[in-house]
Amino acid sequence: MSILDLKYKAVRSMTWSLAASLSAEDQMVQSCPEASPVKWHQAHTTWFFETFVLRPFLADYKPFREEFHRLFNSYYISLGEEIPEKKLRAFFSRPSLDEVLAFRAHVDREMGRLLERFVDEEASRRIVLGLNHEQQHQELALTDIKHAFFSNPLRPAYEAPSLGSQSSHTILKLGWHSVYGGLIEIGHPVNAESPMSFCFDNETPRHRAYLEPFRIANRLVTCREYLEFISDDGYTRPELWLSDGWETVKLAGCEAPLYWERDSGDETGWRVFTLRGSHGLSALLDTAVCHISFFEADAFARWRGCRLPTEAEWEFVASQKPQIGNLLDMGRLHPAPATGEGVDQLFGDCWEWTASPYAGYPGYKPLPGALGEYNGKFMSAQMVLRGGSCVTPPDHVRATYRNFFPPATRWQFTGIRLAV
Amino acid sequence: MSILDLKYKAVRSMTWSLAASLSAEDQMVQSCPEASPVKWHQAHTTWFFETFVLRPFLADYKPFREEFHRLFNSYYISLGEEIPEKKLRAFFSRPSLDEVLAFRAHVDREMGRLLERFVDEEASRRIVLGLNHEQQHQELALTDIKHAFFSNPLRPAYEAPSLGSQSSHTILKLGWHSVYGGLIEIGHPVNAESPMSFCFDNETPRHRAYLEPFRIANRLVTCREYLEFISDDGYTRPELWLSDGWETVKLAGCEAPLYWERDSGDETGWRVFTLRGSHGLSALLDTAVCHISFFEADAFARWRGCRLPTEAEWEFVASQKPQIGNLLDMGRLHPAPATGEGVDQLFGDCWEWTASPYAGYPGYKPLPGALGEYNGKFMSAQMVLRGGSCVTPPDHVRATYRNFFPPATRWQFTGIRLAV
Amino acid sequence: MSILDLKYKAVRSMTWSLAASLSAEDQMVQSCPEASPVKWHQAHTTWFFETFVLRPFLADYKPFREEFHRLFNSYYISLGEEIPEKKLRAFFSRPSLDEVLAFRAHVDREMGRLLERFVDEEASRRIVLGLNHEQQHQELALTDIKHAFFSNPLRPAYEAPSLGSQSSHTILKLGWHSVYGGLIEIGHPVNAESPMSFCFDNETPRHRAYLEPFRIANRLVTCREYLEFISDDGYTRPELWLSDGWETVKLAGCEAPLYWERDSGDETGWRVFTLRGSHGLSALLDTAVCHISFFEADAFARWRGCRLPTEAEWEFVASQKPQIGNLLDMGRLHPAPATGEGVDQLFGDCWEWTASPYAGYPGYKPLPGALGEYNGKFMSAQMVLRGGSCVTPPDHVRATYRNFFPPATRWQFTGIRLAV
Amino acid sequence: MSILDLKYKAVRSMTWSLAASLSAEDQMVQSCPEASPVKWHQAHTTWFFETFVLRPFLADYKPFREEFHRLFNSYYISLGEEIPEKKLRAFFSRPSLDEVLAFRAHVDREMGRLLERFVDEEASRRIVLGLNHEQQHQELALTDIKHAFFSNPLRPAYEAPSLGSQSSHTILKLGWHSVYGGLIEIGHPVNAESPMSFCFDNETPRHRAYLEPFRIANRLVTCREYLEFISDDGYTRPELWLSDGWETVKLAGCEAPLYWERDSGDETGWRVFTLRGSHGLSALLDTAVCHISFFEADAFARWRGCRLPTEAEWEFVASQKPQIGNLLDMGRLHPAPATGEGVDQLFGDCWEWTASPYAGYPGYKPLPGALGEYNGKFMSAQMVLRGGSCVTPPDHVRATYRNFFPPATRWQFTGIRLAV
Repeated sequence: MSILDLKYKAVRSMTWSLAASLSAEDQMVQSCPEASPVKWHQAHTTWFFETFVLRPFLADYKPFREEFHRLFNSYYISLGEEIPEKKLRAFFSRPSLDEVLAFRAHVDREMGRLLERFVDEEASRRIVLGLNHEQQHQELALTDIKHAFFSNPLRPAYEAPSLGSQSSHTILKLGWHSVYGGLIEIGHPVNAESPMSFCFDNETPRHRAYLEPFRIANRLVTCREYLEFISDDGYTRPELWLSDGWETVKLAGCEAPLYWERDSGDETGWRVFTLRGSHGLSALLDTAVCHISFFEADAFARWRGCRLPTEAEWEFVASQKPQIGNLLDMGRLHPAPATGEGVDQLFGDCWEWTASPYAGYPGYKPLPGALGEYNGKFMSAQMVLRGGSCVTPPDHVRATYRNFFPPATRWQFTGIRLAV
Repeated sequence: MSILDLKYKAVRSMTWSLAASLSAEDQMVQSCPEASPVKWHQAHTTWFFETFVLRPFLADYKPFREEFHRLFNSYYISLGEEIPEKKLRAFFSRPSLDEVLAFRAHVDREMGRLLERFVDEEASRRIVLGLNHEQQHQELALTDIKHAFFSNPLRPAYEAPSLGSQSSHTILKLGWHSVYGGLIEIGHPVNAESPMSFCFDNETPRHRAYLEPFRIANRLVTCREYLEFISDDGYTRPELWLSDGWETVKLAGCEAPLYWERDSGDETGWRVFTLRGSHGLSALLDTAVCHISFFEADAFARWRGCRLPTEAEWEFVASQKPQIGNLLDMGRLHPAPATGEGVDQLFGDCWEWTASPYAGYPGYKPLPGALGEYNGKFMSAQMVLRGGSCVTPPDHVRATYRNFFPPATRWQFTGIRLAV
Repeated sequence: MSILDLKYKAVRSMTWSLAASLSAEDQMVQSCPEASPVKWHQAHTTWFFETFVLRPFLADYKPFREEFHRLFNSYYISLGEEIPEKKLRAFFSRPSLDEVLAFRAHVDREMGRLLERFVDEEASRRIVLGLNHEQQHQELALTDIKHAFFSNPLRPAYEAPSLGSQSSHTILKLGWHSVYGGLIEIGHPVNAESPMSFCFDNETPRHRAYLEPFRIANRLVTCREYLEFISDDGYTRPELWLSDGWETVKLAGCEAPLYWERDSGDETGWRVFTLRGSHGLSALLDTAVCHISFFEADAFARWRGCRLPTEAEWEFVASQKPQIGNLLDMGRLHPAPATGEGVDQLFGDCWEWTASPYAGYPGYKPLPGALGEYNGKFMSAQMVLRGGSCVTPPDHVRATYRNFFPPATRWQFTGIRLAV
Repeated sequence: MSILDLKYKAVRSMTWSLAASLSAEDQMVQSCPEASPVKWHQAHTTWFFETFVLRPFLADYKPFREEFHRLFNSYYISLGEEIPEKKLRAFFSRPSLDEVLAFRAHVDREMGRLLERFVDEEASRRIVLGLNHEQQHQELALTDIKHAFFSNPLRPAYEAPSLGSQSSHTILKLGWHSVYGGLIEIGHPVNAESPMSFCFDNETPRHRAYLEPFRIANRLVTCREYLEFISDDGYTRPELWLSDGWETVKLAGCEAPLYWERDSGDETGWRVFTLRGSHGLSALLDTAVCHISFFEADAFARWRGCRLPTEAEWEFVASQKPQIGNLLDMGRLHPAPATGEGVDQLFGDCWEWTASPYAGYPGYKPLPGALGEYNGKFMSAQMVLRGGSCVTPPDHVRATYRNFFPPATRWQFTGIRLAV
């Protein structure tokens, strides 16, 4: 069995595991426009392999059901007719979850047939892309079901309530790591040549950038620190905010991170909804604050007299560190307190908002055809995030990885690392 | 076993029958703001009995689950906290359908206990109200699932495709029935004294009204006739429309009834989505046109040089006819061609838009307390409809029955009877 | 000089008088979608005579400027191309006020020429309609400039601040007038035959209606009484409100009539903006409450254990009274305290919301052609108001006159008369 | 008379000149949310001097009218109460234009008194900032009145129709200028020390950046070239567009630049509205295309197989060129054909969209206090534009000048320079 075959089976079965505890009804909910039903994630990731691998590369392939080609296309406009609206997904009582699982089984069986043979280089490249695509949807499925359960008045939990002990840990004080800067290089050195060296097109080309000297924080901002910002009227002082941020906060009536709710029963006055149910904030004070927008991260940094790092600064630091942290394989499903030495928490816990708007690197070229719609067409009005979160598969992220979301986004595990 | 007990069992099991072919996923869809998921209909109607009968009248009653009290309240503001938004219903993956069915079973068991004993007069009155309430939701469940299935790109059918033969029927020509009018009476003679004589508060008090002489059509307007209106540019001639109607039609881009879709494969150029799947319009030409708004009904009438009847005119005519027609018990689930003599189709087929805005009758008094929120508070900007439809339970409707919807409503089975 | 000629000159010069104190800038403001700039009122009323009288009936008439035909059409869709949006009016810096006044002078001169000759019966009918149309716009110009000035942070006054002495009046207690009812007649007896007997098409035909016995209040509800409703939490008790009304009030955050503002300097805690500037509410307590929506009127009536009269009830009472009251010719520009005997304030002070949705009378026929768009096409989702206000020209209103507005409307002088 | 005094008088009287031909009514129009009435521009720029110079630095200064402090604040939240909404400006019939001009005269008189004396360094710095602020509003006043006149159905012209002869010019072919790049510097070398060296805070600090080799176009893209893009279905091919751009274009129904209208009378099929009235496009084919969004610029570049330059690339090239071009002092008020050698049209004609999102330079610090709200708080979701336009005052722009607008903006004179 080839490495690719092994990897395929591992990623695909991880999706199954993550969804296994959810009912057909749970997997149908879409609780905000940016989220999708888990059933849809299961189908769409399968559609990717059918569309980009099986149809073009397996000569005798028979599609599972012809309508699925249109039904589970998310945004690849080049492939034809646009799906009316993302929220249409909410009406997808049909196909049933059973049928979607049968679709997965069908595609897995056929992929097995294909992988048994010699695999064409382009096919191989697409399979790797499809697996990385599926890993992105694994993370989304978890953040989407978190939002869905939070939207349900009964507030069901995805997993058992234990968030791990906090009592014994030593609280890591905020400290600074100095970097001299100069003419450095960032970006992935080469486009995907083998499954081992995969990267997305937006990580390339590797290129030079000039960095002024800077200092970067040794860990993420904690809930305890963020609570001070709230107590110091952080949400009602316009001078701390970008103009768009101020409008967003006023319009939505924000006064705390997403998933924080007033709770007089906890000494902090707050409780926090997690994938493991609601917990008093006092038990989470030394974990990284998460589910905040870029606007909140930016306002917090200004309040502290700091700023957010640029993505070049972040990558330059992270490229010198081992890629370990509180990622999905830890099974925690929530940020943990920082404990490490040096610059901790670069990988895992929370995606870190950077000060960098998402744009193409100098000389950037998207992939040809429909696959070129993957990254480049979103290079407008989004901010780059780095480092992965507690629900990112560990073999999915790397120092050069560029995640991106609009600045008001809060439903992802997003947090703050300071720089000066 | 009392009549009330029998009636209770009959109505409750009818709800079960109507939902039986729908999966848990099907029962979760809410495809437009005015619709609700079928699962919600099942729970809310059960909530009614728990809230208004079991809690106050069964001394040792234990609620199935405390949160359901708030969860399945639709709009009874007097009962406390308002449910955030109707569309929240779309996130109700939990409680599961299984749990809702257990809730139904629990309440039915407890209602059985209560009905075995002597039933207090007020309790009895509320049970009858609750059964009529549930019948309304049976009709809504069918119109809502029709809309849900139409919103699904796969266009599933609720029932087997047969709409009954049309071939042998004699087409009934449009004719007119003359009424002399004068000082007549309308409204239900007396408020509910027994299950047999139930009426809603808005049907009372019975009162006098003066009618000028008028003529009323012998049947509903057919799809064939409506197609002529479309062909005669009915949707693009502003002089045929009320001002609000014109704006509504232009904004929504309407050019035909809801559920009509262009289809070059049918000789009429249209196909129609029904609870029994999509059918070429040519097979339905002599059935009543349905799923049209008041604005469309009004514009059609003006185009024909006619008008819609007032509710007093309609009731005066209908009160002299037997209450039979193509109602839910016929199992057709779609309008049938008119065949009868005299004034046909008064009951069943389609709710008939009248020219009467929905208002209280002279001396109208709502029920006391939360039950008073049933009808009276909606007496603004809605139009009265009469006669029931092909999905109305047959023992639910009567000559004095007043249905009401905003004038732009189209997802109910609504049609046109002309008057002059 | 004919009576028609005299009437024409009187009405047209009244428009001029009402606008005389307003600058070109004042006359350009449109502060809400339902209002229009005063300059537009001046132009549109003139357009009416050019379009419906001069063009068809004065053979050698030369239009003032060809574009005005399209520019100053408000909603007569039959005349061709629709004007994009009502709010476009806000951009009408051109034509300038000077040019609009020249347009008025041109049309007046040409109308003078036409009126010197024998006037065709249809032309004569249209001139009378045009004058009544202009009187409606006189009232609108005053309510629109009131709203415009209220929207301006400087709160300019339209007229000198005196609202007349209140000190010497005897406060008229709320009393009831009993009416036996029975089969009565309402509506204007005959369509316009001469300027003397003008009525709008919606007042016809005269027809029979049956009235149950009722009692009607001897005067309008005062600010003092309305303040009790507010103090008794009238705005926060959902059971007092129609469902649409409750939503409207919550959405807009209403807690008092339009133009009431919190003012700790007045003993009532409120001040009221009028066409004569802002005044402490304490000086206006015994005047009729005005600028309230139908929803507020209806909620107030429910709170008092009363209801609003139907339009038939109102007209039956009013038709037996002389048509005098605090109308525009009193020059007060605000409601006055009630003083009279019997049923006072039927005419003038405030338009009285009735319980009647606006619909056509039995046998109603609109005028032919574009003039038929005057009234009939608005017969949807509006409520009938009766009696005129303190800014209605005195020869414009009558017992059969039917005004109509959507139930949420507040910028007109609208008030409450109770019935039981 | 000091240089500062001379400069003050020159800038202030230029504002007067630009508005001189507009009536009080013209100066009141606000035809889109991003625009302001010209009267407001006149008042707000004056408010700047009163607020930031006269009140703090002229001891015996008496404000013209106390309310103006609040009334003409645009967005300086730190100064207190926020003005409700930008669109409120549309209701500003009062203060009248006469009063605003009196306000200007009052402030000019008092500024004269202040400038006669020794001027404090901070005051001096603020005066220079105020003059640059006023120059920005001069440009805005012209773009706003252009939009206002385009919104008026009569389409008035701001100036006489002549756009200058095109017949004799030699058409400059599109060519490329190669730049080696490397480690370069951009940004203004030092913060404002004297009126001569003024810059905005966002142009600082000067800093290093690394440029890969690139080529930049010798002139702006012309209407002729843009027409080819339209003819080649540029507006209907999603693969050419950023995702946000595609949505914007579809939603708004864009098919050409703002101010282009279909006109069968011109051989190109289009006419173009300018500050000098409407002209057939055929007379403007070799002028720079303008009033396009960043999305359109970006799509055009992709269609041509090119890209937009980054702001660092642009500045590096522009810093080596004299700062001359078709700016406001040319009086043309519209782009002219390119004629020069080398890299032409860097200054004037059109603001050039760059590929750079607007962000702070490394080490950027906003001014302290309310003045700090000038630039930094808008650093989100906007794109940088460079070079000034045909309505930019010539002494206002420079190679380091950073203009910025949201990517969908079209009402400014915005165009395209290509790079590869």
